[in-house]
Amino acid sequence: MLAREHIDTLGALLGAGGLLTAEADMAGYERGARYDSGRAAFVARPASTEAVSAVVAYCARHAIALVPQSGNTGLVAGSTPDATGTQGVLSLDRLRSTFELDFDNRSLRVDAGFRLSEINARLEPHGLFFPIDLGADPMAGGMVASNTGGARFLRFGDVRRNTLGMKVVLGDDAGTVVDFGAGLRKDNTGVDWKQHFIGTAGAFGVVTECIFNLERLPQQVATAYLVPRSPEHVTVLLNAMEVRLGTYLSAFEGMSGAAITRTLAHVEALRNPFPGGAVPDFVILAEVSRSWLPRAAEQQLDAVLEEVLADIWSLPEEPLGDAFVGPVHEMWALRHALSEGVKSSGYVVGLDLSFRRGELMRFRQHMSDLLALEFPAVAICDFGHVGDGGVHFNLVVPKLADGTNDMATAEALRERVISVAVEEHGASFSAEHGLGRRNQRFYDRYTTEKLKSMAAQLKQAVAPAPIGTARLG
Amino acid sequence: MLAREHIDTLGALLGAGGLLTAEADMAGYERGARYDSGRAAFVARPASTEAVSAVVAYCARHAIALVPQSGNTGLVAGSTPDATGTQGVLSLDRLRSTFELDFDNRSLRVDAGFRLSEINARLEPHGLFFPIDLGADPMAGGMVASNTGGARFLRFGDVRRNTLGMKVVLGDDAGTVVDFGAGLRKDNTGVDWKQHFIGTAGAFGVVTECIFNLERLPQQVATAYLVPRSPEHVTVLLNAMEVRLGTYLSAFEGMSGAAITRTLAHVEALRNPFPGGAVPDFVILAEVSRSWLPRAAEQQLDAVLEEVLADIWSLPEEPLGDAFVGPVHEMWALRHALSEGVKSSGYVVGLDLSFRRGELMRFRQHMSDLLALEFPAVAICDFGHVGDGGVHFNLVVPKLADGTNDMATAEALRERVISVAVEEHGASFSAEHGLGRRNQRFYDRYTTEKLKSMAAQLKQAVAPAPIGTARLG
Repeated sequence: MLAREHIDTLGALLGAGGLLTAEADMAGYERGARYDSGRAAFVARPASTEAVSAVVAYCARHAIALVPQSGNTGLVAGSTPDATGTQGVLSLDRLRSTFELDFDNRSLRVDAGFRLSEINARLEPHGLFFPIDLGADPMAGGMVASNTGGARFLRFGDVRRNTLGMKVVLGDDAGTVVDFGAGLRKDNTGVDWKQHFIGTAGAFGVVTECIFNLERLPQQVATAYLVPRSPEHVTVLLNAMEVRLGTYLSAFEGMSGAAITRTLAHVEALRNPFPGGAVPDFVILAEVSRSWLPRAAEQQLDAVLEEVLADIWSLPEEPLGDAFVGPVHEMWALRHALSEGVKSSGYVVGLDLSFRRGELMRFRQHMSDLLALEFPAVAICDFGHVGDGGVHFNLVVPKLADGTNDMATAEALRERVISVAVEEHGASFSAEHGLGRRNQRFYDRYTTEKLKSMAAQLKQAVAPAPIGTARLG
Repeated sequence: MLAREHIDTLGALLGAGGLLTAEADMAGYERGARYDSGRAAFVARPASTEAVSAVVAYCARHAIALVPQSGNTGLVAGSTPDATGTQGVLSLDRLRSTFELDFDNRSLRVDAGFRLSEINARLEPHGLFFPIDLGADPMAGGMVASNTGGARFLRFGDVRRNTLGMKVVLGDDAGTVVDFGAGLRKDNTGVDWKQHFIGTAGAFGVVTECIFNLERLPQQVATAYLVPRSPEHVTVLLNAMEVRLGTYLSAFEGMSGAAITRTLAHVEALRNPFPGGAVPDFVILAEVSRSWLPRAAEQQLDAVLEEVLADIWSLPEEPLGDAFVGPVHEMWALRHALSEGVKSSGYVVGLDLSFRRGELMRFRQHMSDLLALEFPAVAICDFGHVGDGGVHFNLVVPKLADGTNDMATAEALRERVISVAVEEHGASFSAEHGLGRRNQRFYDRYTTEKLKSMAAQLKQAVAPAPIGTARLG
């Protein structure tokens, strides 16, 4: 329990509505999107960078731990307080003033509290968008703090690639405000400090304003479901598509039959799109798109895609078992429903892994064999980003006889799969969800002592205050 | 002069051919591509990461300053020794063993001593390339250390975007060898340390091995020269092209008439491509490309480009004064000859600036007015990367009456232009050439004390040894 004096000072500093301390008001900030919940000492809701700075400085000087939070849509306990009740939540949800489009520069300066959906809705009339494609709807600040990737990484990259600058409150006694970058695309004038705040879950401070690169909105899109003849043919298929479509190819997503089946059973609005309703073992959702309308002499995109698939069909390797071009919205609706769909069928151990592209399907096969032996009751319901080597390796653990979650099995499973992925397949244990309490132990295990020591010194130099959920040292 | 004992120890450590001390042998390593030359205490040429580590460790323990150097093609004195004769050059030109293509991952693990041209020649049979397009031919290590950009940044980005991992020898007493990243595209598991070695000219250590992202080779390319109706119409033209061509647009380069005229006069092999030989004030080289061959029902790319230009021609803003589609190789030959061509006509103050895209032409107009008043004898012979806001703002200073270079005017000019660019137009004073002795004073002036202090602490934590040409603290 935090001393009354601190609460009073922070309340005065933040003004009406700026500080929440009643349990009912704080509840929404204490619970994460899926796995985590804790207890907050308070929730501070500053409405300006200056107010963020004041809160950070006060808390730093009094050794009060702060957890920055924006959209709170993450899955690694990166933005919620722990169970001690001693940490304050620093919510960015009132940072919503600045929204400055620089059309000629294709860039946007935006406060951390704007949601992705809102950003893109406002940009649409200008024919531009922030090219991060997600099932969730995070705020700008959290996207930077977790370096979100998403389903169109293959063409547009992650938040790191699309961040041209930021305003930051460092986690120090002064709550120092620093501007990094001014929206330039080329700038090599020293240490690129903004990189430190991308993907580090607030360990170095709080991003209050972002400058994002924007891209032209796609004007035409076509999608197909591809059924590879075998798991070994997935990479052949990916290469064949890239060779024939170049930068037209904007997504190449994998969906396991197990995930699809559970989702179709759970989400009534979805139609089973497979001939005779027979869900294949593994399906690729391929998307081609272009940011212009077809000119007179140009094919429609569906025709391009059909022609390319016919060409691949006749390759000597015969990588394609089946393929059908279909309605874009419907095909993505299934893909985006998988996360919720899988969740409905049991307790989900959700792992966010990435591999070198050729290694992903080998890992998948290895796991299929290994889990059948060691965890026969567990179902692999994975899906994700074959085109960039990422996979949401979701494992569904059946409930115990008494109807409760089997947490012992879940933990053993998590431990086993991550060990094999990292140690035998060169995987990342956090591809695009960032850092948080939930993957701290893997950071501790797989980071060398040398790098931990360097990180600790960096933290000391930049942000000595107890801020963020990740311990880097 | 370095103590004999050090020379003997380093010589023994490096073996035959590994250490150069004779003046004639060292000369090529002491002089830069254009502006700089100095004197080396020795040139160490280790042939493996282990040998780099041994040299770095020995020199760190004996406080011997090291300047890492690879292709030595830079323009900011980032890879040559100073005049004192006390610095050793650590050349990476024998680091040429590892060249491992991972075709499925579209990535290459390559030693720092391979040249860009060599990398791409070896990749060509696989239909892949490292998508950095330059007039110069640097080695992999130097491309990372300066975060090279180039003429196709608009589509493919810079070295930072295309670096998936690296092996580094830290500048510490142990010459600690560290691997950052293993070729994954998504990996958010802590501080992204590799970012520190990109664009910092060796201040934190020596990159000995790189893992690069590769792209599919273009299969079809078309180019046009566009003459904007006025400087204000350049940005209108850029936006109009992007809207109509999306990711087809792979370059949008600006060339001043002054640079073109000098180059045509200097390089006999070049043909004057303009109707009647009249060189316009400002010309855009626009390139469209795609990484597949045209399908049956698809237009050839020059037909696409012509159709798009016809469309833009009829816009109400009338941004286009003239335009002609022409032979790709010839159009690029002029563009790539500009750097040498401009150099031939006097002493060149070469500035490597970048701006928000809409600001670039405003700066150019401002400079044109200002220099006409303050430096009327100086000619603006700029060219560069309008599509990403970069410009090689080259200023030709006439020789003095006695035939020598007018260095006083050159220095005053450099000072004046950079001040106006940075302070009034929000420019970067080093867009894509990185850091070196030549722009140290601008780093010192435009970096805040807070960031210098953070950089000094970071340097202390990662690489306390005297290494590299940039002083970050």
